[in-house]
Amino acid sequence: MQKKLEVLKKHLREVKDLEAVVAVLDWDQTTFMPEGGAPARGRQLALIARLAHEKQTDPAIGHLLDDLEPWAQSLDYDGDDAALLRVARKDFDKAVKMPPAFVEEFNLHCAETYNAWAAARPANDFKTVEPLLEKTLELSRRMAEFFPGYEHIADPLIDFIDPGTTVGILRPLFAELKEGLVPLVRAITEQPPADDSCVKGFFPEEGQLAFGRRIVERYGYDFTRGREDKSPHPFTTSFSIGDVRITTRVKEHDLTEALFGTLHEAGHGMYEQGINPAYEGLPIADGTSSGVHESQSRLWENVVGRSRGFWEYAYPELQTVFPDVLQDVSLDAFYRAINKVSRSLIRTDADEVTYNLHVMLRFELELELLEGALAVRDLPEAWRARFKDMMGIEPPDDKDGVLQDVHWYAGKIGGCFQGYTLGNVLGAQFYAAAVKAEPGIPAAIAQGEFGVLHGWLKNTIYWHGRKYTANELAARITGGGISVAPYMKYLREKYGELYDL
Amino acid sequence: MQKKLEVLKKHLREVKDLEAVVAVLDWDQTTFMPEGGAPARGRQLALIARLAHEKQTDPAIGHLLDDLEPWAQSLDYDGDDAALLRVARKDFDKAVKMPPAFVEEFNLHCAETYNAWAAARPANDFKTVEPLLEKTLELSRRMAEFFPGYEHIADPLIDFIDPGTTVGILRPLFAELKEGLVPLVRAITEQPPADDSCVKGFFPEEGQLAFGRRIVERYGYDFTRGREDKSPHPFTTSFSIGDVRITTRVKEHDLTEALFGTLHEAGHGMYEQGINPAYEGLPIADGTSSGVHESQSRLWENVVGRSRGFWEYAYPELQTVFPDVLQDVSLDAFYRAINKVSRSLIRTDADEVTYNLHVMLRFELELELLEGALAVRDLPEAWRARFKDMMGIEPPDDKDGVLQDVHWYAGKIGGCFQGYTLGNVLGAQFYAAAVKAEPGIPAAIAQGEFGVLHGWLKNTIYWHGRKYTANELAARITGGGISVAPYMKYLREKYGELYDL
Repeated sequence: MQKKLEVLKKHLREVKDLEAVVAVLDWDQTTFMPEGGAPARGRQLALIARLAHEKQTDPAIGHLLDDLEPWAQSLDYDGDDAALLRVARKDFDKAVKMPPAFVEEFNLHCAETYNAWAAARPANDFKTVEPLLEKTLELSRRMAEFFPGYEHIADPLIDFIDPGTTVGILRPLFAELKEGLVPLVRAITEQPPADDSCVKGFFPEEGQLAFGRRIVERYGYDFTRGREDKSPHPFTTSFSIGDVRITTRVKEHDLTEALFGTLHEAGHGMYEQGINPAYEGLPIADGTSSGVHESQSRLWENVVGRSRGFWEYAYPELQTVFPDVLQDVSLDAFYRAINKVSRSLIRTDADEVTYNLHVMLRFELELELLEGALAVRDLPEAWRARFKDMMGIEPPDDKDGVLQDVHWYAGKIGGCFQGYTLGNVLGAQFYAAAVKAEPGIPAAIAQGEFGVLHGWLKNTIYWHGRKYTANELAARITGGGISVAPYMKYLREKYGELYDL
Repeated sequence: MQKKLEVLKKHLREVKDLEAVVAVLDWDQTTFMPEGGAPARGRQLALIARLAHEKQTDPAIGHLLDDLEPWAQSLDYDGDDAALLRVARKDFDKAVKMPPAFVEEFNLHCAETYNAWAAARPANDFKTVEPLLEKTLELSRRMAEFFPGYEHIADPLIDFIDPGTTVGILRPLFAELKEGLVPLVRAITEQPPADDSCVKGFFPEEGQLAFGRRIVERYGYDFTRGREDKSPHPFTTSFSIGDVRITTRVKEHDLTEALFGTLHEAGHGMYEQGINPAYEGLPIADGTSSGVHESQSRLWENVVGRSRGFWEYAYPELQTVFPDVLQDVSLDAFYRAINKVSRSLIRTDADEVTYNLHVMLRFELELELLEGALAVRDLPEAWRARFKDMMGIEPPDDKDGVLQDVHWYAGKIGGCFQGYTLGNVLGAQFYAAAVKAEPGIPAAIAQGEFGVLHGWLKNTIYWHGRKYTANELAARITGGGISVAPYMKYLREKYGELYDL
């Protein structure tokens, strides 16, 4: 069996390495590639992606998994081999259930839709993408049908990035959250708005980048196993446990863009860098779900990076970087500026409190589209109506409404957004558990010491890669499941104090 | 037949795309990769290289070539399809004649030898690498034996990078060159040495890089289809005709390092960027030989970039970039400094005149090793003796003697060095032909106008990719073959004037 396991690992490493090569080609395309490289790069990406898919669905992997199945059942659930075999079985079944012809049709359709959306969004032209989105919806439904036995048609689609999470789990969770958030947003927005003019001055790019890098290095992001470059949209990508890169973008008239982007991506990056090195090259060497991944980016960006304690340490240093703009701005004024809450149109610009309402809107619309309760042609109007209902303001156009996010126009409809809110919820829950285990953490943060928090997260979450699902992790850490309470408590305390509620 | 040709092209594009992906992984490894990425990158590179070799030796390609052979014979020799089929046949035969087990043994041995050399060179320790080099020699001989029917055992090895070139062609060419160079070097070095202190001041990196980039952009290197980054050793790499990148390295106390390195690599880069776009993704979309490639780098680096005319245009601009160091240095003094000739130990630092003596030394030693006339254990002593004989100075150690170049320690012995000298010879020959066809070129260069020269080289050489061999190109351009005369004339005129001979 050990010998078969080794053969299986060899196959799996090839799959993972091909996926890593796709990631390298993608990263280069987004960061450094000259425009003339685009046509060939598309060809090269498609070739390696095809080879990766061929390797991933190689029947030899299926036979090895079948042969190893009885042995796998006899192994300790917490062991690395057992975890590897669970994960490999899941990936293989997912990959072989979708016929290659469907995958090809789907990818071609996504590429076409993406290009149409890239032109349609600035032109505020939903009509052009409407028929493409109809097709996307049909393909998304067909994709779900390859995984029969679900309760809700969105479940198999959610399972791609949040394994084990279902509509049945998410609906009550989101309902509870909404019940807490809507009155909180109302209470905050009845107060005078915070003044954030101090972060809208002029902040030269070089200083912004250097400051962000110093902070995430202190956090524990390892630059000998990573780097930060600029790209139009920030992202984190992993070529191996020893090479996890992040990107950021800079606005010289908005300090928050690059800074919190960097803190956010470094959270993702530390997760990937912190995986048990024994998993290198194997499919368990990855984040376990979109929600847990996002819990780490949001924890380091918001729970730590927008806390008062953190800025007690970091603000004097930031003032020395930008003395002209910040020397006369108090810590308190700065803290209020970076935590300004407002009803706004764009999800990616939203503050901590309103952010989840943006997500829930999309989640509800996805479900209704998949259920057939909402037609694509009625989507823009539904967006506007729900948005007004939830947020109290109405998007003036589709550009900043239904066309604002790339997700539906570059992939399937279904399972796209829940991870963001799961991340906020889990981030607060994990942080509360960390502080319970290590009560010195908040004081250490105010001293610029992040080692205890980082170490706790690494041992508890990062190290395991995909060994445990999000639900299993939550259970191991808190003794219960995913819970909204710590997150609502965090928001109520922080924003209650900020807005004198 | 057209249909079979299309199927063949599809196969060939996949080979080329996999090779391009290897190049991307290599480029990233050398320019941006954090140190932690090394182990996985080695694995990823080996995987893609293996897949490329599998595709390249796919019997389907052989069958298609066999089927197309009679049709290929009927085609016009100058047509693109005929050229593609010639080149593809040659590549396929080369690839399948070496058994995969041999290729693997050879690659493993090279990796081991390279690592040993990287430690042995700074330690001046030839003894450690001696047994490995013995094995390299044996493997190089075995490699040649896979291609029987040669006149000299080095011929098949030379043919890998300078197709159609043989020891029978090179020996008389090099003998003629040596006969001209040795007295020229003697005459120059009997004169007082040139003063190059003006290029050894302090030149901040940023200014050096920006100036070099402005120059090569004027040359015709297209930054929308390329870019320049820093790496420990400069190189040019092509991911497609639309994405040809160069690298450089900077010494802040030696202006010549980055500047002439950039001009050199841009010469390689313009060659690759200038290939007929219809060849994109096919094996003819490449430089035709090491010698022709080097002719372009040396032409733009030396024949243009170290000419007095060029600096009449460029020197005032350079002075504005580094006014502190250069404002009191005359054009004449600068021109003499960048063309200083001296007997020196290191090939890569050698001037235009002595450079070829370094190459010939290595070429002769390679032949004798392969012939069995020289034993590996006697190589360091032979190096010292020949070097003294040829250059008039003796290397004090092996570090700057037989251990100085990576080539023998990272690959085969045989065919490693001739391309450098062929490049010098062909560069002068092609430039003379260009000026004969377009007599306004030198005056245009002195105005900073390079379009006519670049256009002539593009139409005459770049555009054809691998359609014509080096010998065919020389014949098309000059009516004869490769000839030493234009190069010796160029050196005698330039250095005769510089050194008052």
